[in-house]
Amino acid sequence: MGGDHGPAVTVCGAALLLDERADLFFQLHGDEARINAELARLPKLKERSVVIHTDQAVAMDEKPAQAIRRRNTSLANAIHAVKSGEAKAVISAGNTGALMALSKMILKMLTDDLERPAIGCSWPNKKGFGTVLDVGANVTSDAHQLIEFALMGAAFHRAVRGVEKPSIGLLNVGSEDVKGHEEVREAHKLLRENALGLNYHGFVEGTDLCEGTVDVVVTDGFTGNVALKTAEGAARFIKDLLKDAFKSSPLAMLGALLAAPALKAMAKRIDPGTGNGGPLLGLRGIVIKSHGGADARAFSNAIRVGVSLAASGYERDITLSLAQFSQSLAEQEALSLAATSSDTTIKDLPLAGHLEVAGNKVN
Amino acid sequence: MGGDHGPAVTVCGAALLLDERADLFFQLHGDEARINAELARLPKLKERSVVIHTDQAVAMDEKPAQAIRRRNTSLANAIHAVKSGEAKAVISAGNTGALMALSKMILKMLTDDLERPAIGCSWPNKKGFGTVLDVGANVTSDAHQLIEFALMGAAFHRAVRGVEKPSIGLLNVGSEDVKGHEEVREAHKLLRENALGLNYHGFVEGTDLCEGTVDVVVTDGFTGNVALKTAEGAARFIKDLLKDAFKSSPLAMLGALLAAPALKAMAKRIDPGTGNGGPLLGLRGIVIKSHGGADARAFSNAIRVGVSLAASGYERDITLSLAQFSQSLAEQEALSLAATSSDTTIKDLPLAGHLEVAGNKVN
Repeated sequence: MGGDHGPAVTVCGAALLLDERADLFFQLHGDEARINAELARLPKLKERSVVIHTDQAVAMDEKPAQAIRRRNTSLANAIHAVKSGEAKAVISAGNTGALMALSKMILKMLTDDLERPAIGCSWPNKKGFGTVLDVGANVTSDAHQLIEFALMGAAFHRAVRGVEKPSIGLLNVGSEDVKGHEEVREAHKLLRENALGLNYHGFVEGTDLCEGTVDVVVTDGFTGNVALKTAEGAARFIKDLLKDAFKSSPLAMLGALLAAPALKAMAKRIDPGTGNGGPLLGLRGIVIKSHGGADARAFSNAIRVGVSLAASGYERDITLSLAQFSQSLAEQEALSLAATSSDTTIKDLPLAGHLEVAGNKVN
Repeated sequence: MGGDHGPAVTVCGAALLLDERADLFFQLHGDEARINAELARLPKLKERSVVIHTDQAVAMDEKPAQAIRRRNTSLANAIHAVKSGEAKAVISAGNTGALMALSKMILKMLTDDLERPAIGCSWPNKKGFGTVLDVGANVTSDAHQLIEFALMGAAFHRAVRGVEKPSIGLLNVGSEDVKGHEEVREAHKLLRENALGLNYHGFVEGTDLCEGTVDVVVTDGFTGNVALKTAEGAARFIKDLLKDAFKSSPLAMLGALLAAPALKAMAKRIDPGTGNGGPLLGLRGIVIKSHGGADARAFSNAIRVGVSLAASGYERDITLSLAQFSQSLAEQEALSLAATSSDTTIKDLPLAGHLEVAGNKVN
């Protein structure tokens, strides 16, 4: 029940989605009095929901380290409901850092290799929506993490956009194999060898994000976060310039009036609310982050993302993909050690040490 | 004389700037016949320029490693003219990689610490233009390189935008001290201690680029390149959506017609051509990269950047700043070693080794 606007937005968002999907059922965590005040105006939702009261809330600016020490906050309670199986997904417009930390602590990561969840986002492009990850959780990512993002991004895009084999691009500063830093080049090499069943396109650049060149763009959390905020800032800047232009003369004002319906339809297309709902990927459970400033319509879009994921085979899909990746890495390592041992044989040098290591890895 | 359009654009660009700045003089490097064909229509420029003929040109897709082995290309000749002092600046719309490699080889870097030039760019924002660097040359940058970028970016912005003490921001994923990876946090710490006379604002985020929160945004070449191309892609996407919206109904078309002059003025504001001219910073000499696809007006803007730099104390400014930074680093290192030695004294342990090291560094 968090976010900048509290239950007024989140409860109404649930009601909006219920109009489309009458089969849904909601647990509403937070201050009972405030939630019930909203529900009084929404009889359909009232019938299809249960209120779990708490007077404890995580503040928007609370440090994650502090938030994870507090019991019975609405955020912690909601995540526990997913852990226990009472709820299929948690959707929050609250404090991102606290949501990350609490989700990781309560739900745990899907595999031991994953350090923390990757945040995905839906990016409007010429073809509809792409998936971009990580947009902020992992400020540095090695080649293996980038590949995990690719696997998780593909599973998410498949579940939410219905594309069976989403195309994957790795964000870089150019398209040639030699471009970029070691991490992206290594991930590129591993993805091209393509033991993972991914539809790997290759490197993509910043311009490809809005072009929609691929379905899923993979990058580290630092670059992804900067790219997302840069694009949001550029869109807002152009919107403001456009407003000023339309106000600059009586003729321009009349022009704006005539074109208003078309401009509104266009603005909706790139409105951050339309693609609202960023999944925290890699957790044992579905967690969706909504923009803090989302309105009810935008928040209902975030819930929809959670519903799509819950209805799909997404979690099993990711778990299998990650397990397959771990295995293929172990096999490659074993192969490369075996190769080292054969090389050693050819050169007629002592073998024992190498073979022992290779044996250890294979079994 | 490179770029996608050759002398038709570059020669006309020079002519356009000469209309404003009658005191300029040009060396035009390239195919004499093609250049003279353009000059025939531009008598004023013909009087104020000299053609240096060569039939060798670096192709737009030529590998830098190949380009630096070829003699007498128009690009190499132009850079040599700066090296010898015949020209004050070289402006090229040609192959960026080759321009970088040849400039570094012929002109050399300003200090031994600098590995390669940083590419700056002029970024349109709410207040006019900001400077962003590096946008592509250095795919990884440690804290010291980021500070060198800050010093060079400040010197560039001062020379070209006339701001005595430009404000500097370090691009990150949040504004708190703990945010981001080690390199930005270390650079942030050093910049805050502020021994370098910079007007350091602190961390900035992607949204601040178009907001114009600071004059100069510093980042590594990977992030900067992705941010720049993402913003360009987003602007192009919105422009295309806008065009479609204006074509979507007869009323919208009429509206567009009425608002056309205002929309054109706005488009000019964010047109990449208006801020064309990215400096290669850190070289012993002025080198400006123009967009390959620039038109004559955009190319004249790139020449103007070169002229501003040549007329300013920019090179001396950068050289002094970098020397001051090197010295302050050496002093800090000496201080920290001296501190280590005093600690050792207190603990009453043998001193000799530490003090000798400290002495070496101080002198």
